[in-house]
Amino acid sequence: MMDAYRRWIGENRDCIRKDYFEFLAFQSISSELQYAKQVRACAKWVVLYLQSCGFGAELVETSGHPVVWGEDLSAGSDRPMLLIYGHYDVQPVDPLELWKSPPFEATERDGKVFARGAVDDKGQIFYAMCAMKMLRSLHGGLPINVKFCIEGEEESGSEGLADALPRMQKRLRADSLLVVDYDSYDEKTPAINLGARGIMTLSVSLTGSNGDLHSGIYGGIAYNPNRAMAELLASLYDCEGRVAVDGFYDGVREPTAEEIRSFGRDEDILRYAKEAGIEAFGGEKGRSLSEANLLRPVLEINGIAGGYAGSGFKTVIPAKTVAKLSCRLVPGQDPDDVGHKIARFLKGRCPRGMKIDVDLNRGAAAYRANLSSRLAQAIGLASEEVMRRPCKRVLSGASVPIVGALARAAGADIVGMGYGLVTDLIHAPNEHFDFPRLERGLLTVARGLELL
Amino acid sequence: MMDAYRRWIGENRDCIRKDYFEFLAFQSISSELQYAKQVRACAKWVVLYLQSCGFGAELVETSGHPVVWGEDLSAGSDRPMLLIYGHYDVQPVDPLELWKSPPFEATERDGKVFARGAVDDKGQIFYAMCAMKMLRSLHGGLPINVKFCIEGEEESGSEGLADALPRMQKRLRADSLLVVDYDSYDEKTPAINLGARGIMTLSVSLTGSNGDLHSGIYGGIAYNPNRAMAELLASLYDCEGRVAVDGFYDGVREPTAEEIRSFGRDEDILRYAKEAGIEAFGGEKGRSLSEANLLRPVLEINGIAGGYAGSGFKTVIPAKTVAKLSCRLVPGQDPDDVGHKIARFLKGRCPRGMKIDVDLNRGAAAYRANLSSRLAQAIGLASEEVMRRPCKRVLSGASVPIVGALARAAGADIVGMGYGLVTDLIHAPNEHFDFPRLERGLLTVARGLELL
Repeated sequence: MMDAYRRWIGENRDCIRKDYFEFLAFQSISSELQYAKQVRACAKWVVLYLQSCGFGAELVETSGHPVVWGEDLSAGSDRPMLLIYGHYDVQPVDPLELWKSPPFEATERDGKVFARGAVDDKGQIFYAMCAMKMLRSLHGGLPINVKFCIEGEEESGSEGLADALPRMQKRLRADSLLVVDYDSYDEKTPAINLGARGIMTLSVSLTGSNGDLHSGIYGGIAYNPNRAMAELLASLYDCEGRVAVDGFYDGVREPTAEEIRSFGRDEDILRYAKEAGIEAFGGEKGRSLSEANLLRPVLEINGIAGGYAGSGFKTVIPAKTVAKLSCRLVPGQDPDDVGHKIARFLKGRCPRGMKIDVDLNRGAAAYRANLSSRLAQAIGLASEEVMRRPCKRVLSGASVPIVGALARAAGADIVGMGYGLVTDLIHAPNEHFDFPRLERGLLTVARGLELL
Repeated sequence: MMDAYRRWIGENRDCIRKDYFEFLAFQSISSELQYAKQVRACAKWVVLYLQSCGFGAELVETSGHPVVWGEDLSAGSDRPMLLIYGHYDVQPVDPLELWKSPPFEATERDGKVFARGAVDDKGQIFYAMCAMKMLRSLHGGLPINVKFCIEGEEESGSEGLADALPRMQKRLRADSLLVVDYDSYDEKTPAINLGARGIMTLSVSLTGSNGDLHSGIYGGIAYNPNRAMAELLASLYDCEGRVAVDGFYDGVREPTAEEIRSFGRDEDILRYAKEAGIEAFGGEKGRSLSEANLLRPVLEINGIAGGYAGSGFKTVIPAKTVAKLSCRLVPGQDPDDVGHKIARFLKGRCPRGMKIDVDLNRGAAAYRANLSSRLAQAIGLASEEVMRRPCKRVLSGASVPIVGALARAAGADIVGMGYGLVTDLIHAPNEHFDFPRLERGLLTVARGLELL
């Protein structure tokens, strides 16, 4: 069967490339309002593409960007029901000047495809859809029933889909949920993902005056919001690298020796940290890198902006300073609870007289999957056939915020798969993927469906 | 005489307004390279304007933006020589969206003139030049010899003029230096300025990786440069609001009771702080507001930027975070020495493995003037005649970096004057001035020349 698949891919290579590059051309940046039209245009393209794969497909409107829904239930009610999740939205592209080719014109260099979304998640959900096209083309239909739920707000909090889950519950019903948004273990070794950290994001602003102030005229008088923000943010960590927020670790159980052993991969982490130029390590003292990255929660400052930090100088005391924080959470932590604790901590330490605003976004809890589910077995085996190597079982330090809730709504076992690599520069300039990996993904999904 | 002056102003009001608004239309932002042409165009306009006042005028090229030089030495060698200093460059205008009218289209609202530079320093140097036009028009010439030195880099460090001082020394020679870039005491009370704090500015950057990182995949591994910057900046202050940098206060003598008494104005400060919406005070504990603002040095964080802090969210660990710092210095502090101490302090506390760069700019020492100089007497008396109120002697918490060095190069006594108000929003959106104050400035300069 694998040979027939590889032959089909060979015969359809030009068409696959054309479709993939078309998909990558949409500026489907979900977090920035001015791209709303392009996000929708991208969703419509996905509907058409699913239809070309023989699926019934449509847009499901939400409180945010639309969800693309597709289904082919022709295998019959006695066959398993698989729900496949991915997203067609992408991260912002700034700093634009660091891109070597335009982020929305897919460009091949050195055997790689450079574009925003090349991997995350357009590249990955694309090969999953393409696998359906191949199965239909070769067998006239699918071996099992398949539903696609492809959302447009994964990179900005999945609010729309989260809101829609209750009313979509019946249609979501499935035996298994395959999340196609993860990395392989390394270039040569496949992996299935058995869990990811949860997430909670917060925006913090400090306001000290009605407008920016001259730093000479007001220096020694006004409390500078930049200083107050630095003091607040620094107070979030203790000298051991732990988060100092009261109650932050409530509900977190210590990792077992078995977890540390089976998910530990410090050598790999050190290798890819070196490739990324990282020489300063910031995790909790006394924990291994894997432990800090996979089994422990963290709090990161994703953005700070206050005053003028461009070229030259502007000697102001800014009226306002903002910071963006995100936590990665582990099982046992409730996102809202953690968010409120951080907000309370910051408000309690804000200098008297300074205005502080803390906005909490909707969070998502961490999740862990069942190692022995049918889906875990099928995808594991399929990836081993494709890669000819034992499949690793891994956790992710990152988050796919909606999937825990989605699995609960669908009543499904969950497994994550993917052929991303940590060196793909997702979320950063010059994100890239390549055709050999896209092909592996396509084969793994197709073979996995047969094995279910 | 005052009546004749006021009549002349009344007769020439339209022309004064037209010239002033023309001057304000140039986008002469010295700190941003892309405005270099507009800075030069503005300088040429000033040359033409001085020529229209009967002055010989020309551009003096420097290592940076050109200096405008003007002189009228026809009063004869037995008469005093006055050097007048100001600047034609302005601060940047961002955040542009907070301006209620375009910053380079002077707009009158509620009796005020809104524009970048309306006061600082285009408005102020404009009335000084206009005073020359009036004196020539009414008397056929000037009572004393006058030189103008109007630079184009005051808002970005005055490097060009500082470099040029040695070769301009002969031409700068003067008995008195009048710096027209200050505030009056309040709306009704004139002031002459007898000193200003010095300044030292630094740019700091922390680099933790080759590119922005995904904060889930690297969270718990990489030391986040935003966190490191917050920790470094917070460490610059102790819990008493003092600067914690070793040796920062070296050479600073305690203010005398006489200084505290004569320059104290906490009630005024509280009033204008309230107007600016300031309710959080950040100066050293145990010092009065005036003391902290005028007689003590401060360190301010003028800008911080790292990662993504715009709308929505981008969950990155940034590759790099930058901060802009400035110190306001008092007599006894050497700018370079202070800069190096801060750099050493920051470098010594930078997390291991993280790259830190600290760039020091050229600083300027604080200066103090002689209360009993001829110029101080003349300008004080002139302003009292114009305002019919006793003139206050004040210090400035701000800096006019070049003027100490300029006074030394010219061998001149120095005095600062001006009709700015702390509520004018200089350096901020919606900077504004008004015609009554412009007129007072014009009268004060003209009358001061007669009294010298």
